[in-house]
Formats: sequence, structure tokens, C-alpha cells
Amino acid sequence: MSKSGPDILTDLYKKIYDRKGTDPKTSYTAKLFDRGPNKIAQKVGEEAVEVVIAALVEKKGDLAEESADLLYHLLVLWAQTDLDPTDVWAALARRQGTSGLDEKAGRKGKS
Amino acid sequence: MSKSGPDILTDLYKKIYDRKGTDPKTSYTAKLFDRGPNKIAQKVGEEAVEVVIAALVEKKGDLAEESADLLYHLLVLWAQTDLDPTDVWAALARRQGTSGLDEKAGRKGKS
Amino acid sequence: MSKSGPDILTDLYKKIYDRKGTDPKTSYTAKLFDRGPNKIAQKVGEEAVEVVIAALVEKKGDLAEESADLLYHLLVLWAQTDLDPTDVWAALARRQGTSGLDEKAGRKGKS
Amino acid sequence: MSKSGPDILTDLYKKIYDRKGTDPKTSYTAKLFDRGPNKIAQKVGEEAVEVVIAALVEKKGDLAEESADLLYHLLVLWAQTDLDPTDVWAALARRQGTSGLDEKAGRKGKS
Repeated sequence: MSKSGPDILTDLYKKIYDRKGTDPKTSYTAKLFDRGPNKIAQKVGEEAVEVVIAALVEKKGDLAEESADLLYHLLVLWAQTDLDPTDVWAALARRQGTSGLDEKAGRKGKS
Repeated sequence: MSKSGPDILTDLYKKIYDRKGTDPKTSYTAKLFDRGPNKIAQKVGEEAVEVVIAALVEKKGDLAEESADLLYHLLVLWAQTDLDPTDVWAALARRQGTSGLDEKAGRKGKS
Repeated sequence: MSKSGPDILTDLYKKIYDRKGTDPKTSYTAKLFDRGPNKIAQKVGEEAVEVVIAALVEKKGDLAEESADLLYHLLVLWAQTDLDPTDVWAALARRQGTSGLDEKAGRKGKS
Repeated sequence: MSKSGPDILTDLYKKIYDRKGTDPKTSYTAKLFDRGPNKIAQKVGEEAVEVVIAALVEKKGDLAEESADLLYHLLVLWAQTDLDPTDVWAALARRQGTSGLDEKAGRKGKS
């Protein structure tokens, strides 16, 4: 079943995107879009805090659930700003090119 | 090219996982593992802050790059705790089941 | 009126501390203590995200309110861990000693 | 010694404010102002993540130091936006008025 792979992110992004502009009373996602970009970004930050806490003190199952929450809200943020997920996959792919994962450190070193 | 899809997350997770326990001087990823779970979780939190800021005040290209940074560190956190990515995809898939994305709101409502 | 100075932090810390172990139904503060350290730390992280957003996109009045929210939850976190605020004031005082505020950078440079 | 009380925040704010617009090479604080509001807000978010981690897994001494780091960067953020600290103390004072600390919960309930 394809849903058990990372393709779920593509599927979910499409479904989330389709909720843009729909009645906020009809779904949690539509309500998030209605509250605007600041609120969506805030949720991403909050879910990341929950991931941090789950990783440090809670069980592995919680980390999976909190990570899913974070990814879901990140997808909403991308949809809100019309960011195509393929741009993110491409950014990740560039990091595992010829120089491997060390390229990441190199990029950071410049900032 | 398969690297332009979300499968990059599976590929990258494997490569990250293979760095566990290797010499911290050989790569940024190995260095992160060497610094331990608290430091890795801290990086996830910090990258999320950068995503929030990129979403609110910077350009879309920055949001793609910062999102990639966040995902990369999240993968390291999963690898560090031996969390299988398929557990996260499964958690996401459960949310777009029969009741659709509203299920997410329902789950949160219980907490 | 003394409440318009930073002494409010000392006053508020005492009041917060007195709520430890009281019936969670009687106040928001008692409810936080009842939910435990992870939840209190989570609130500190979430309020910081709101401070970041208020600083970047909202009005100055909002930044004052969100900063107050952050400080309040930080005081609850200190009370929860029995951390005496004077230990924090002392840590801040050390940073503006002979070498001035540059000492901060020096300390960070070591990590 | 007055520096062992919360008045240190007032003293420190003044010193931080005086660094606005000075040569970024002369101090860490001047360098922060030079990097701009987004970077300062980012630092507040990052220090909050460190506070969360210190509270959950590290020693009380670390929580004092990380809290001091957070407060220092919060003061820089206030100075950067010309927010007067007394506005924050006033916001905190309002919360411990007639209705006590429950007022905080009430305010949140409205949002």
C-alpha cells in the first residue's frame, strides 16, 4: 500500500491544498488557512517543541506521532505560501550529491 | 529522477543511519550523532524557528531551504532514536482515512 | 508603585510558588503544576514562538503582552524546578562585569 | 548589592540599548543589532529551545544559565523594537490584580 511510504506527503499535500479557501467550519485544515500564515507558522513552531520534548523524555511512539503532527503543519505552511514540495525534495537531494552529507555542514559554515 | 520526489527522505534516512557511530571528524552527520540526542533535538527546535521566520518575512526560496534543513535534522533525530520513518508515514496515513483531515482535530481535542 | 518595575518578577514568583500543590481546579497556575514539568517547559517553548512572531509581524503592544506571557511561564518553570530567581539575576550580573557585554560572546564561543 | 535582584534587568537593558548603532566589531550586542530584528528574534527562539532542554534533562545550574541567555536576548529584542521594559512589567502586574493569576487563563480563553 503506497500510503506506508513517504508518498503520503505528496498525497497529503494535495488534499491540504484543496482545502484552501473552503469553509473554516468544515475541517481543521480549512480553519488553519482561515487563521492565516502567522498562525500556521506558530503551529509549526509549537509542534517542533513537542517533537523536542517527545525525543527527550517520552516514548518512541510519541515521537512518531509528534513528528507526524509537525510534518502535517509544515505541509499546511507550504500550501499556504504556494511552495511546491518538489522544491524541498530538490533542496534535500542537492545535499546528498557528490560531496555527500558533508555538503550540509559546508552550506551552514558560510552563514 | 527519483530524487525529486519524497523518496529522497527514505534515501537520506538510510545514508544518515549509516553514519551512526562513525568518526565525528568525517562528516557533519557523524558529528551530530557524537554530540548526542539532546543536541540533535535542540537542532530540530532551532531549525523550526528558522522555518517560522522564513515563512513570515523571507522569500519562498528560503522557506524551501529552511524546510530542508528542518527535515534533515528531523531524520537525524529519528535515526538517533531508531525510529523507523514508516511509523511516521503510517501515523500520517491514519489521519487521512475515512474521516479525512478532520480526524487530526479530533485527536488533538482529546489531549 | 513598585509593581511597575522588575520587582514584579519577584512578587509574581512568590505567588506562583505558593500555588504549587494546590487544587488544579482553583487556578491556571495550579493546573500547570499539576500537568508537570514537560508541559510547563512546552508552554515556555510555545510562548517563545509567539514572541518571535509578535516581534516580526505584529505590533509593539503585542510584543509586550507576549513577552509577559513568556516571562510568566518561565517563572512557573523556575518554581517547578525550585530554581531561585536570584541565581538567574546573578548569572546575568556576571555578564556585565569587567569585560561588559562582550563576556556573553566569550562564553558562547567556548561551546 | 543591587545586582543580585531583578533590577539587573533594568541596568542591562540600558547598557544593551546604548550599544544600538555602535560598531558591530566592538561587542556581541552591537553585532546582534547589526544583524537585524529577524536574527535577534531567531536567537530568542533558539535560547528558549535551550531552556526547554535544560529544564527537562539537565541540571538546575544549567537552567539558570540558559534562562539568563534567554532573558539577555529578550532584552536585546525589546531594545531593537524600542519596547520599554516597563510596558512588560505593567502587563505582568495586570495579571496579578483583583482576580489573581487566573486572569491569565481568562485572557488566553478569549483568543
